[in-house]
Amino acid sequence: MVPKNKILKILSEYDRDKITIATLCSHSSLQIFNGAKKEGFKTLGLAIRDNNRFYDAFPLAKPDEIMKLSSYSELVDNYDEFLARNVIVVPHGSFVEYMSASKFEDMPIPTFGNRKVLAWESDRNKMREWLESAGISMPRVIEDPKAIDRPVLVKYNGAKGGRGFFIAKDYPDFKLGIDTEQPYTIQEYVLGTRYYLHFFYSPIKTDGYRVSEGSVELMSMDRRDESNVDEMYKLGAAEELKRLGYYPTFVVTGNVSVVLRESLLPKVFEMGERVIQRSYELFGGMIGPFCLESIVTDKLEFKVFEISSRIVAGSNPFVSGSPYSDLVEPDMSTGRRISREIKVARDNGQLEKVIS
Amino acid sequence: MVPKNKILKILSEYDRDKITIATLCSHSSLQIFNGAKKEGFKTLGLAIRDNNRFYDAFPLAKPDEIMKLSSYSELVDNYDEFLARNVIVVPHGSFVEYMSASKFEDMPIPTFGNRKVLAWESDRNKMREWLESAGISMPRVIEDPKAIDRPVLVKYNGAKGGRGFFIAKDYPDFKLGIDTEQPYTIQEYVLGTRYYLHFFYSPIKTDGYRVSEGSVELMSMDRRDESNVDEMYKLGAAEELKRLGYYPTFVVTGNVSVVLRESLLPKVFEMGERVIQRSYELFGGMIGPFCLESIVTDKLEFKVFEISSRIVAGSNPFVSGSPYSDLVEPDMSTGRRISREIKVARDNGQLEKVIS
Amino acid sequence: MVPKNKILKILSEYDRDKITIATLCSHSSLQIFNGAKKEGFKTLGLAIRDNNRFYDAFPLAKPDEIMKLSSYSELVDNYDEFLARNVIVVPHGSFVEYMSASKFEDMPIPTFGNRKVLAWESDRNKMREWLESAGISMPRVIEDPKAIDRPVLVKYNGAKGGRGFFIAKDYPDFKLGIDTEQPYTIQEYVLGTRYYLHFFYSPIKTDGYRVSEGSVELMSMDRRDESNVDEMYKLGAAEELKRLGYYPTFVVTGNVSVVLRESLLPKVFEMGERVIQRSYELFGGMIGPFCLESIVTDKLEFKVFEISSRIVAGSNPFVSGSPYSDLVEPDMSTGRRISREIKVARDNGQLEKVIS
Repeated sequence: MVPKNKILKILSEYDRDKITIATLCSHSSLQIFNGAKKEGFKTLGLAIRDNNRFYDAFPLAKPDEIMKLSSYSELVDNYDEFLARNVIVVPHGSFVEYMSASKFEDMPIPTFGNRKVLAWESDRNKMREWLESAGISMPRVIEDPKAIDRPVLVKYNGAKGGRGFFIAKDYPDFKLGIDTEQPYTIQEYVLGTRYYLHFFYSPIKTDGYRVSEGSVELMSMDRRDESNVDEMYKLGAAEELKRLGYYPTFVVTGNVSVVLRESLLPKVFEMGERVIQRSYELFGGMIGPFCLESIVTDKLEFKVFEISSRIVAGSNPFVSGSPYSDLVEPDMSTGRRISREIKVARDNGQLEKVIS
Repeated sequence: MVPKNKILKILSEYDRDKITIATLCSHSSLQIFNGAKKEGFKTLGLAIRDNNRFYDAFPLAKPDEIMKLSSYSELVDNYDEFLARNVIVVPHGSFVEYMSASKFEDMPIPTFGNRKVLAWESDRNKMREWLESAGISMPRVIEDPKAIDRPVLVKYNGAKGGRGFFIAKDYPDFKLGIDTEQPYTIQEYVLGTRYYLHFFYSPIKTDGYRVSEGSVELMSMDRRDESNVDEMYKLGAAEELKRLGYYPTFVVTGNVSVVLRESLLPKVFEMGERVIQRSYELFGGMIGPFCLESIVTDKLEFKVFEISSRIVAGSNPFVSGSPYSDLVEPDMSTGRRISREIKVARDNGQLEKVIS
Repeated sequence: MVPKNKILKILSEYDRDKITIATLCSHSSLQIFNGAKKEGFKTLGLAIRDNNRFYDAFPLAKPDEIMKLSSYSELVDNYDEFLARNVIVVPHGSFVEYMSASKFEDMPIPTFGNRKVLAWESDRNKMREWLESAGISMPRVIEDPKAIDRPVLVKYNGAKGGRGFFIAKDYPDFKLGIDTEQPYTIQEYVLGTRYYLHFFYSPIKTDGYRVSEGSVELMSMDRRDESNVDEMYKLGAAEELKRLGYYPTFVVTGNVSVVLRESLLPKVFEMGERVIQRSYELFGGMIGPFCLESIVTDKLEFKVFEISSRIVAGSNPFVSGSPYSDLVEPDMSTGRRISREIKVARDNGQLEKVIS
């Protein structure tokens, strides 16, 4: 992990009137760049793949400049260029995944948010420790397959992007599906509807819903489209399809906007609040956008199966605001909210509170 | 039922420049308060539960004041306070359900809409009488379980919020599922896609789509998320899950925005029109927002399974307008439309037409 | 097909300051009229059915005038009236379907877009030839039913609006379902999530994402609601329902807004680009809105099963913009984009490039 004082040293040498917001050209970059432009920042796209022409189609989200890199390591190696541009990096899910958590932690470039969160987020056990010690209810883990007494979700370790999961209704179903060569974990399959809750925690905002030294906002909510599980039922029952060799997969292909039953909002904010408070105790606080990925059961209870502690692609439907953020300030995407936070922090001499 | 002349007497003593819009802190209160603020009214939240901090997170929807009540009866008992604040109550689904229809009818506080609608809405038989006599097609009722010759929905009387329903495909399926201890009704299960059609009827608007003495608008449409039935198919077929002891439930957890095939809009307005016209004949007219909860079959026919004659939570995605209301006036939620109606009625000396 | 020089002759006699945008009163007419009004055009609705009162409910989308026609042929017969009004017709899916492709081709009234596209779109074989020769991946066609070795979609020729399809998982399933009296085609059933990609190709725009002589935009995306297949799973497994005589149908009843995983956007634009380029080679270019109807598999590959080369009803959720068009220009629907194109073309003396 790059030491914070090294980052602060770099920041102290920045021309704060010429900050450039940079992110990787993917995932949620359109709203990150669009938001940065709305807040008056320069923008820099970091591109690994060749084809970034699609930005031409979105003039209000096209970065001022695209830096083509042959690999992620090049990003780290040539960091002088970033410093010369007064760059603040805005990470997103793909950014960290493609770069690897350890390289991201070591990147000697000022970055929005607290990079210490990564250690707690990228390890499933530590994530569970964080969330459960914050009082968040999660799907139960089942250690012994023979103890499967309800539907379960079996995840192979290192499963990414929705591959390498399967659902088993009971132990025979588990035996039928399991590849014992690979390490796996078994989790209770929670029946219910899914809400991906997009929060934004500001450590410098002193009004609104106060948490710890700052304030938390609810930006929006989405539900993920997953291929092929979403439409598989049209073909037949899961049991019958298995016999034919078709298994459900959970690859995220897009997002749909949703709103939650209003009477559940107090619980939503309590969950957000506790996760932030616990993050201060564990690693000095989580900053900026995060997402609680939850299932609401028919008893109206939340089960959180994951936390993402940066901007999620599920916020992409809300480029111009959501039914929630419109009640804070119209036309505010999560991408724009990040740049707003950087702008306010800069204007008040508090950049060190939102950067690591 | 509180007599209308008593309400009019109270209204006559109001300071009409200081009207306060009040509602219960739940359900669709964010858009009701947000809309009231946009129309320039003071706002008052009525809170039974302790935790109303979530309003702090939504400054544009936070009521000017929150009145904490220990119970719903306290609301009725201390009504002097309401009158001193020149309160007009905006009811929503939870408001009436929690307070009970009879207490709501008797509440001696000016209330938006015609409270006489409740008697026709809260009794399933009277609702059916209203809708069918208005020419609305509804799912068929099946009196004798042995006559089940198609898929049916069995509802236990008093079922609330989506519990206490079950689907049966035939008579054996019915026998397997039924708890004969509880009274129930059997209704044809209509296959199709669901559209919850949000209307607003103004008795004082003299342009637009004229109905009776006023005019009807189409505000928006949603589809409800229901836990656990929405995602149950991922686990397996309904038949197989039943054998394992898993039954679908229909608890509403949220809402998704939808639009309807445009060629069906004439039918939508005809249905809205007939329901309003019939409401005048039966109980002097329904005022303000109402929702026809419908299924569209593959023959493009509507089957309406319920009417809600006040603001529904399904309008919550449309805090800043919908693809329909944007064609009337941008940035118009159903919550705001209610306050607009109160404002126009006040300014034209017609409050008695929209209040009971 | 009406000769282009005949249309150009008519155009040359138009009063270009008094152009009227006309379309059939259905499908996506609300946004077409709303968009035309925003761009300052007069509007004319062409109505076959009697009931067009629903426009009264949408003052911002109500055409200035409605011309009642007893049949579609009347539209062609009395075209002097159209010319006197300086009418440009904006076609949509229902317009062409109800009028018939051949009558539409012959209509001696200036029409937005290139009518030559119809010959390539209304014939399934030619459509496949166009798309596949453009490098678009489509679901495989299976010639011999006995060769069915995976799930398939069987379509009866002339099937419209989602009727006359069925899904078969294997050859026995096919034999069970097929009506051999009717001609049919068999297509691989692609498992995945559906994205209806709404493009707009301008031959006169010289910035943005350049394609051929013009530029392409991504306006929005939707997913169709289909009755009864969408909700059929609630009743039971497809296999079980078939035994009871219930078969899935695919009648479009509405639309839901979606966004796509951002990393797939380069592929989306490449597909749009190739289809446009190939359209120039085959028939002189496709102009204006078109839709690629696609499935994204769990390998993140697109399979395109159809192209619609005019405005689709799936753009109806986006009357006031979408998460994509908001990154080009706020408040821009596909309907408005059409009128903007006509306005820009007129102002620059290029109407002949967007009209046929």
